[in-house]
Amino acid sequence: MDILDKSERKTLLAPLLENDWSMVDGRDAIGKTFHFKTFRHAFAWMTQSALWAEKMDHHPEWANTYNEVSVVLQTHSAGGLTMLDIKLATRMDAARHPA
Amino acid sequence: MDILDKSERKTLLAPLLENDWSMVDGRDAIGKTFHFKTFRHAFAWMTQSALWAEKMDHHPEWANTYNEVSVVLQTHSAGGLTMLDIKLATRMDAARHPA
Amino acid sequence: MDILDKSERKTLLAPLLENDWSMVDGRDAIGKTFHFKTFRHAFAWMTQSALWAEKMDHHPEWANTYNEVSVVLQTHSAGGLTMLDIKLATRMDAARHPA
Amino acid sequence: MDILDKSERKTLLAPLLENDWSMVDGRDAIGKTFHFKTFRHAFAWMTQSALWAEKMDHHPEWANTYNEVSVVLQTHSAGGLTMLDIKLATRMDAARHPA
Repeated sequence: MDILDKSERKTLLAPLLENDWSMVDGRDAIGKTFHFKTFRHAFAWMTQSALWAEKMDHHPEWANTYNEVSVVLQTHSAGGLTMLDIKLATRMDAARHPA
Repeated sequence: MDILDKSERKTLLAPLLENDWSMVDGRDAIGKTFHFKTFRHAFAWMTQSALWAEKMDHHPEWANTYNEVSVVLQTHSAGGLTMLDIKLATRMDAARHPA
Repeated sequence: MDILDKSERKTLLAPLLENDWSMVDGRDAIGKTFHFKTFRHAFAWMTQSALWAEKMDHHPEWANTYNEVSVVLQTHSAGGLTMLDIKLATRMDAARHPA
Repeated sequence: MDILDKSERKTLLAPLLENDWSMVDGRDAIGKTFHFKTFRHAFAWMTQSALWAEKMDHHPEWANTYNEVSVVLQTHSAGGLTMLDIKLATRMDAARHPA
């Protein structure tokens, strides 16, 4: 999996950065903090995201405290952002919507 | 926990029966089949419902095949429907909504 | 994915049938009922199995009541048992062991 | 819920500190990093712990990266360690054992 090139960053990464994702300081990685009504909502969303992650064999770094989940995405084997991160970020955003 | 009386069935059970829940044949129990986009959506909803169930110490009988989940609710210790079933059914319906 | 042939059934299916799996009446499918200490144990095992299922894109028919989970496996697209069922059954058995 | 007193720390907290839990620097809180075989094992354990947490209405601060989960426990409403933390830590340790 290749690191995103300049053109891909403009077309694929930019829309995420306008949707509350941001570059992680000092790393070629993106992060976002998700807020939910309750722990139950947060953990159900984590479960749906975990199922995607396992299907893609691409897993997040994430931390949960009650109704908040902070996510960092990077393709460790590539040492930076790849299409896998774009795809997982998009899926995580979509998983907030109704079932 | 007491079995729902006639008045409670009219005010509390009737709205569920108008929202796709139905009486289970031959039992004082209610059932509903939920449909989701994918297995991931179905299982995330099951996780949220499981967290409620564990909190209430009141658990469903449920079956899942890919994107469908069939649920039956009854308070086994009471031998019929109680407020616990009304509450869990309501929570399961609510858990289909956005996070 | 091909239906298991006679030889595969002898070498791959037979060991499962000696480990509490059984043929489902009237279907080329296998089933097993798993017992756990509590609902929590049952649902955690379902989550681990769900992650495998999603990774394999092969999902069980399963039903849960408190600490019991009844599973039926069949490859619907093939109309019978395939290597996917052998693999998922083996994973489900393994998932009962320590983390 | 009261902060653990000196005697409770000796009898209840000390055994956890001998089982890989440690005091968190600068906080009256305990932490432990759990290692699992795979992400699936890690997330199944998180699910079992989440069910306990929801039942107790006492939730961890935790972070997951692939097969590792780092946990911090503190009773925020009490501003320090209470019996809830002892209980949840003990449950989390127990949840690593067979189903």
